[in-house]
Amino acid sequence: MKRGRVPRHIGFIPDGNRRWAAERGLNKEEGYSCGIEAGFQLFELCAQRGIEEISIYGFTQDNTKRPTIQKCAFTQACVDFAQGLSARGAALLAVGDGASRQFPPELRSYLQRTGEGPRVNLLVNYGWEWDLGGLRTGEIKSKDVSRLDLIVRWGGGRRLSGFLPVQSVYADFFVVDDYWPDFCPRHFESALSWFAVQDQTLGG
Amino acid sequence: MKRGRVPRHIGFIPDGNRRWAAERGLNKEEGYSCGIEAGFQLFELCAQRGIEEISIYGFTQDNTKRPTIQKCAFTQACVDFAQGLSARGAALLAVGDGASRQFPPELRSYLQRTGEGPRVNLLVNYGWEWDLGGLRTGEIKSKDVSRLDLIVRWGGGRRLSGFLPVQSVYADFFVVDDYWPDFCPRHFESALSWFAVQDQTLGG
Repeated sequence: MKRGRVPRHIGFIPDGNRRWAAERGLNKEEGYSCGIEAGFQLFELCAQRGIEEISIYGFTQDNTKRPTIQKCAFTQACVDFAQGLSARGAALLAVGDGASRQFPPELRSYLQRTGEGPRVNLLVNYGWEWDLGGLRTGEIKSKDVSRLDLIVRWGGGRRLSGFLPVQSVYADFFVVDDYWPDFCPRHFESALSWFAVQDQTLGG
Repeated sequence: MKRGRVPRHIGFIPDGNRRWAAERGLNKEEGYSCGIEAGFQLFELCAQRGIEEISIYGFTQDNTKRPTIQKCAFTQACVDFAQGLSARGAALLAVGDGASRQFPPELRSYLQRTGEGPRVNLLVNYGWEWDLGGLRTGEIKSKDVSRLDLIVRWGGGRRLSGFLPVQSVYADFFVVDDYWPDFCPRHFESALSWFAVQDQTLGG
């Protein structure tokens, strides 16, 4: 199974927005909105390639401890992104603690999957402890998110940062050094080409 | 915190034993025993560098579905490795399902931490589902294993393969393309040098 392996479900960690802004002399919070169009482009690429499901890191419960101006900026970026995805025909699911005041009210309707198109899971006010805590009374909170085959992270960091720990257990991890707002299609093509030649053993 | 950052707890995934053996015309199961001395060398290096805790992937519940001759070989390698670590003064903890017949009886005494030296957690008949399943009635089964700062994997694979998902959430991930039995100290030094210059944000 060395050649032609195609991921069914890809996770995306669009990191580096603040560093991108700072390098341009912008305020850190100005980086987030600059990633939205990139996200739509990535969604369209996935749809064209027949990727069945994608999961995207929006923001975490930990992120909401950042300065208010940043919190407002990334929350608004997530709302705009989610609404744009929905308008583009995504079957959207918001994965995160919807009972908290940090969860944007505009996205409450996406706490159940909406639509029939390509599946997109957007992590909004997500926390890995919140997610696993579901096991105390039943299943993980992200039980409607399937196992990941591939995770792509922008911004050079080689860590998961709490991204869907259960679904990530066997995922291949590809890192793009460029910051997320500098997204271009060749990042995505490089990740798919690399994935196609990885061995898949699943511990067997 | 860009310079001089030192990991407190490192995870090691010593992969590539079977590929190493196959490339030498040996039977696959002959690869495991060839990694034991490398493991002792790595332990001594960590002790010299003052690393407080290390976790090492021995074998998983999934691995025990492999052919019997392989299962016997990696189980014996784990037993020999654990006993050698203990003799070298490690405070050893075996992390895995000790109630199963796949768990080697020689290692039962290590299901509670033994000794006062550098902490070594050896994953023996480990499974991530087994581990997280502890949440259903209390804490994760690996609750005595602390959060990982750095994970080093040999054999080129860029995935966790179920390695301690809770402790890995913020760990930096370093990959060595060489197979584990070809371990040499510069692999370890490269990982530490790389780690020292990674940003640490923990989502804040």
